[in-house]
Amino acid sequence: MESRNQANILAALIKELGTDIVTPGIDVAPRYFTGYGEAPGSRPLALGRPRSVDEVSRIMRLCHRIGVSVVPQGGMTGLAGGAVPLGGEIVLSMERCSGIEEIDAAASTVTVKAGTVLETVQEAVRAAGFELGYDLGARGSCQIGGNLATNAGGSRAIRFGVVRDQVLGLEAVLADGTIVSSLNKMLKNNTGYDWKHLLIGSEGTLGVITRAVLKLYPERPSASTCLCVAPDYQSVVALWQQVRAQLPDASSFEVMWSDFYRYVSANTPGVRAPLPAQQAFYVLIECATAVHDATTSAARLESYLGAWLEAGLVSDAVLASSLQQAQELWLIREGLAIDELPNLINYDVSLPIGLIGEFAERCEKALISRWPQVVSLFFGHLGDSNVHIGVSIAELPGEGVHAVDVVVYDVVSAMGGSVSAEHGIGTHKKPFLGYSRSPAELALMRTLKAALDPKGILNPGKVL
Amino acid sequence: MESRNQANILAALIKELGTDIVTPGIDVAPRYFTGYGEAPGSRPLALGRPRSVDEVSRIMRLCHRIGVSVVPQGGMTGLAGGAVPLGGEIVLSMERCSGIEEIDAAASTVTVKAGTVLETVQEAVRAAGFELGYDLGARGSCQIGGNLATNAGGSRAIRFGVVRDQVLGLEAVLADGTIVSSLNKMLKNNTGYDWKHLLIGSEGTLGVITRAVLKLYPERPSASTCLCVAPDYQSVVALWQQVRAQLPDASSFEVMWSDFYRYVSANTPGVRAPLPAQQAFYVLIECATAVHDATTSAARLESYLGAWLEAGLVSDAVLASSLQQAQELWLIREGLAIDELPNLINYDVSLPIGLIGEFAERCEKALISRWPQVVSLFFGHLGDSNVHIGVSIAELPGEGVHAVDVVVYDVVSAMGGSVSAEHGIGTHKKPFLGYSRSPAELALMRTLKAALDPKGILNPGKVL
Repeated sequence: MESRNQANILAALIKELGTDIVTPGIDVAPRYFTGYGEAPGSRPLALGRPRSVDEVSRIMRLCHRIGVSVVPQGGMTGLAGGAVPLGGEIVLSMERCSGIEEIDAAASTVTVKAGTVLETVQEAVRAAGFELGYDLGARGSCQIGGNLATNAGGSRAIRFGVVRDQVLGLEAVLADGTIVSSLNKMLKNNTGYDWKHLLIGSEGTLGVITRAVLKLYPERPSASTCLCVAPDYQSVVALWQQVRAQLPDASSFEVMWSDFYRYVSANTPGVRAPLPAQQAFYVLIECATAVHDATTSAARLESYLGAWLEAGLVSDAVLASSLQQAQELWLIREGLAIDELPNLINYDVSLPIGLIGEFAERCEKALISRWPQVVSLFFGHLGDSNVHIGVSIAELPGEGVHAVDVVVYDVVSAMGGSVSAEHGIGTHKKPFLGYSRSPAELALMRTLKAALDPKGILNPGKVL
Repeated sequence: MESRNQANILAALIKELGTDIVTPGIDVAPRYFTGYGEAPGSRPLALGRPRSVDEVSRIMRLCHRIGVSVVPQGGMTGLAGGAVPLGGEIVLSMERCSGIEEIDAAASTVTVKAGTVLETVQEAVRAAGFELGYDLGARGSCQIGGNLATNAGGSRAIRFGVVRDQVLGLEAVLADGTIVSSLNKMLKNNTGYDWKHLLIGSEGTLGVITRAVLKLYPERPSASTCLCVAPDYQSVVALWQQVRAQLPDASSFEVMWSDFYRYVSANTPGVRAPLPAQQAFYVLIECATAVHDATTSAARLESYLGAWLEAGLVSDAVLASSLQQAQELWLIREGLAIDELPNLINYDVSLPIGLIGEFAERCEKALISRWPQVVSLFFGHLGDSNVHIGVSIAELPGEGVHAVDVVVYDVVSAMGGSVSAEHGIGTHKKPFLGYSRSPAELALMRTLKAALDPKGILNPGKVL
């Protein structure tokens, strides 16, 4: 019965859209149901690869009518399971709705289709003398639509904000196939409800993002990068205040705790620790500026660095004197070496900046009291209150992850933090949404979901 | 029957909340039903002045149960009629829900109750070494809740964004009295739908904003201000691109068309035109910076000014050499003198920056062809695509305003602009919402309204 029903659905989809657009589940390649770095999810009933917003609309209209669930999908790099099918859905890959439609230099905007790979957009806008307000490690495979649907973050947020802040205009297809479009290019536009913000960050549960207008910034090809040692967390916060006041072109303020720095600088091939290990905090600061002001910018950073050293905010520092040196500093911060740790679990949380030092202490203590052999490494985009934690417990089997989650998120919740700073909820953090949101908020979210997707066909089982 | 029903409602309100909180309509002072600069609206059935979010909730719960409409109200400076009662509603003034709860220096946030006057917040955060990301002419009477409910703009948006961009956390009371609260202090927080953005800019039609957490920025007590002449609109746009690339601390880029500049500089008491009139465009640029960098900032502006003159982008310029001179430049831009024009109608629209020059030409032409004696003066926050127009037609009686609206908004709509950049829709622009939003968008807005306020008691007759 079940399978006959599924066969009927597949036949209806193929009849409506043809075999070029619809691939039966049996023939779908694993990449369409496997998140980055994860085991494959469930094979979908079918894969839809529309070439236009109208085809997206036709797929949604049909699925809405016959009551089939749809999983909108970008580059599968979201890290929260949000784009992985759970079984029986249609995967709606946006990869063919791709391409840059317009770069408007005067408005400083780019209009882009949702399936375009981030790096493609970055290259195109750079050729026009601009850059985007965000950058992500997954730039080579993530797609604009996915970036928006998950409200991605990255390490430039202190300067330009998160992805949400980059979006001026949006087009999306709602659950019933309705196309809503506001390809607005204006910073100011107060004409009714700003519905785009509801779709941004909703992880494909309220609509399928099909196009967007993003802000552009003048290209800043020249960056000055330094690494400082701060003697305690209070100094880290004081340094952050100084940076905000003194360096209007600062775009990164990244912090590494001692253990993280020691581990990564000792275990990253080709990298030697630029500053001695065993200090309390390491802060990576980057200022990026338009080329004609590069000398001023570098000189300004150097002069402030001197002042911070003198004031004791910073006890040691190194200023990158070449692009290569800067890249080495970033290589440490990126910390890919920690991926080698056994049973690594990555956390992505945020807390009010003043509390993060205490949070790290409490969190580590809670982990050690339960798992004395735990390795917990703290680092993150501190300027935007975002801290990542790599937790490795050698003796912990895979099914023990939930217990570690509970310990970490208990501390996050007790201190008023967020269980997901950048990556979203998807399925991975769904059990913990209530750690950061009140029952009234969850009820409001459910009201919005029911209003926009009354049949519950858009990415069911995700977020809520 | 009607009046007996009204008496019952009033009695129920007073029974629930007491006469300290509820004032019968007959005793309500006109300022609670009169918008700034406008004739009085309709006297409300009653005025509610709650002292806490719980009292707001109790008022809403009661009104929801008995089906009475509520008009949330801040400082009444919104200019779109959004907070003015239309007849038979309860006015819910937030003026007693006032006060600053916390300035968190490390997180760089201020937590504030909705009824707090903007200037009060500005003074408090300045005393702590910070400033807000926005400023408005109405600072002495407008309230934070109203600023958020209307997503106010102002003249710093090119640096910090609009009011929406300042909000990290929000608390609100929904139509049925439910309190939803997320007093988040983190820049990154991706835990489910970001419902606060739905309330921001919804003009009190989806909920009553009661508290907010706003971003703070390091105080920039020192500003450098200059006024330039640009020979044509193309040069204005090119100059804007230069400013964006070269001056990371630029916070204003304001443009005045020739007629505006000539009229205002000739008719503002105590002001003498700092540059000759009859040039094409006048651009006011302001950079503001932390005090320790003031010399660098002023020197940088001066040096770039020289380069722009040399490149012909700018044909004449004056750099304010004192605070008083800077204030005089701003006095011209603020253009209060145009309020003296007979039958003045003010417009607040936005268009993609590259099109605004052509827009002004087409708009003026359309007005002249209908009213040959029209005076139309263009000026605005050009860096954020916002242009204001003062239109004066001496022979036009008050009821002719709609005809002028149609002419202006026809051009806005044809060029893909917004009929409301900063001020919102309220009642004044309600007939024109469809000029900037598609039927599908309007339907989506109605779906959201119905979901959050199924009885339609929140600010009925506004926006939609």
